[in-house]
Amino acid sequence: MRRRGVLGQAGLAGILASCSAPAVLAQPVIRWRLASACHPSLDAVYGGTEQFARQLGLLSGGRLQVTLLPTEEPVASLPLLEALQAGEIDALHAVPSHFVAIDECFALDSAVPFGLNSRQMSTWQLEGNGLKLLRDFYAQHQIVNFPMGNSGAQMGGWFRRELDSPADLADLRMQMGGLGARVLQSLGAVPQQLPMGELVGALERGQLDAVEWVGPHDDRKLGLGRVARYYYYPGWWEGSAQLSLYCNAKAWRALPPDLKAMVEMAAQSVHAAIQARYDVLNPVALKQLVASGVRVKTFSKPVLDAAFKASNALCADLSRRNPAWRRIYADYSAFRREQNLWHRLAEASFDRYLQSARL
Amino acid sequence: MRRRGVLGQAGLAGILASCSAPAVLAQPVIRWRLASACHPSLDAVYGGTEQFARQLGLLSGGRLQVTLLPTEEPVASLPLLEALQAGEIDALHAVPSHFVAIDECFALDSAVPFGLNSRQMSTWQLEGNGLKLLRDFYAQHQIVNFPMGNSGAQMGGWFRRELDSPADLADLRMQMGGLGARVLQSLGAVPQQLPMGELVGALERGQLDAVEWVGPHDDRKLGLGRVARYYYYPGWWEGSAQLSLYCNAKAWRALPPDLKAMVEMAAQSVHAAIQARYDVLNPVALKQLVASGVRVKTFSKPVLDAAFKASNALCADLSRRNPAWRRIYADYSAFRREQNLWHRLAEASFDRYLQSARL
Repeated sequence: MRRRGVLGQAGLAGILASCSAPAVLAQPVIRWRLASACHPSLDAVYGGTEQFARQLGLLSGGRLQVTLLPTEEPVASLPLLEALQAGEIDALHAVPSHFVAIDECFALDSAVPFGLNSRQMSTWQLEGNGLKLLRDFYAQHQIVNFPMGNSGAQMGGWFRRELDSPADLADLRMQMGGLGARVLQSLGAVPQQLPMGELVGALERGQLDAVEWVGPHDDRKLGLGRVARYYYYPGWWEGSAQLSLYCNAKAWRALPPDLKAMVEMAAQSVHAAIQARYDVLNPVALKQLVASGVRVKTFSKPVLDAAFKASNALCADLSRRNPAWRRIYADYSAFRREQNLWHRLAEASFDRYLQSARL
Repeated sequence: MRRRGVLGQAGLAGILASCSAPAVLAQPVIRWRLASACHPSLDAVYGGTEQFARQLGLLSGGRLQVTLLPTEEPVASLPLLEALQAGEIDALHAVPSHFVAIDECFALDSAVPFGLNSRQMSTWQLEGNGLKLLRDFYAQHQIVNFPMGNSGAQMGGWFRRELDSPADLADLRMQMGGLGARVLQSLGAVPQQLPMGELVGALERGQLDAVEWVGPHDDRKLGLGRVARYYYYPGWWEGSAQLSLYCNAKAWRALPPDLKAMVEMAAQSVHAAIQARYDVLNPVALKQLVASGVRVKTFSKPVLDAAFKASNALCADLSRRNPAWRRIYADYSAFRREQNLWHRLAEASFDRYLQSARL
């Protein structure tokens, strides 16, 4: 973070002292360097990163100038996180589940298999205990976090062959990261993590049997629909996948209260915008995919049941081994229970009626 | 809107002209008078109105000071709208469907029977054509609008007797406003609009047969669960019910760009907060209601089918009679079709699995 003083505060304060006015002090211009963990081709997300920078410039009248650093391909998240922690960048638009190898708790800020849906995740953070618990966790990583985007429930990915029973998961080489990869492994599959640019080729050659990416819009752009026929849903490992704004804790603390409020508001605004953008883009892409011959299928109940059981086992194991996980997940899972009890009444029955009606 | 100049801009500009700095001009303090169409006892909503005022003070460093006017009981929305249009107040936290008697298009900014759910409504406004279309409509009313809150899918209300078939709607005296009242009337019921303070007594005495209010949190506080046994869902007339911030168009135009951005951001933040607060409060209240003996029931398919058919007939009739409605509703209903096609895959199947799982 670099600051450039624009006016000696004492001098201006002296000038203003003669006025019966609210204090108008010349504020230093603060410059933030922002990076994105997503490639610009993920335009719903990357457009949100750009929007965040623009909005802060507008809100602050130029007092907080956020520069979005050019993104290299392939994007490697870990060096970006280290750069943030070292203060080489001030903010990172992150996919927290990229960091589960450091600590599984990162997944609780993004996607837990069979976890909270998009609305529930926002609610947990805004009005439940989520943000507070995650802030406690992130403090040790020199991060101050804000939810900034969600994809909604992702699709279950692209398969070269149909997947009928849990036995079909045996030795399945499937592209997947986050905690979903661990669940998949416990079911006998072999999770892979290839760079984005290699996915289509690997799936086409049969080096991969399946690829999960995001949803119809991003998947279609990447070309996955051209090389695999079966498109499954739901992505039970990402019933919602949240992105977060990570601020370097020191850079954050250096902001005056009004700029802190602006960062928070801009992040909230982008949080809503990214979800909305995906919801507008995905139906269009899905229709195009179906028109091109893709077969859209749901995972069978036995597959979902096996995955649910394995996910619960993983979460229970993490609660035994990782004290921070135990503390946060206890709240997360209680919240999930409450929300699903409530949403199955008015929300679900209303949605179900409309989804089966001739509109 | 009253402004108080704090420094002659020319004078300060002269002082600052000698600095190679971004222009730091003393800005006048702008004071806005804000009213709420909701009684403070609707705390999820009213707390959002208060939050909006606070956030703007913080964001603007006191440059935009929003005073929330005391709310009289009973709240009458129409005089507040007239006060807004006359510039006597600068902003109103409104329930747009209170104004369907002026023009049915107000409902398109709040709740249409069998309309968009909460997430779809936000998406339509943020990334679809919704906000643009509504802004065009509101311009003739000297209003600049922002979505600011949603209850989510409401419950179907409180009934003294069970409601099994559409025939049971005949002569049913039910408290309901908005377009839902017109649908109800076409089904043979007799919609009523009593003030909030009289609802419990009227239902208890049998002067009303049924009351729809909001959801478990607000309904329990009002005492409806003490005087009617059957609590139905879903509120098909309010699959989501949005509140809006109305700004007087002249007051809005007088804001500089940064304050405009702050108003927009603060409204977006409160929009998310109100939905989240309802989602946290409703499950708790629902459990208390059930524990007190309330019977929670879903409307039967014949009742929903009759209501859906009558709602479609109303919307088609409005499209014939009201050109503005025709223009906006064409986009609204196409958007609803797209969204429900998409959400019934990953979103619905994920939610359904979790809602039926043992969590």
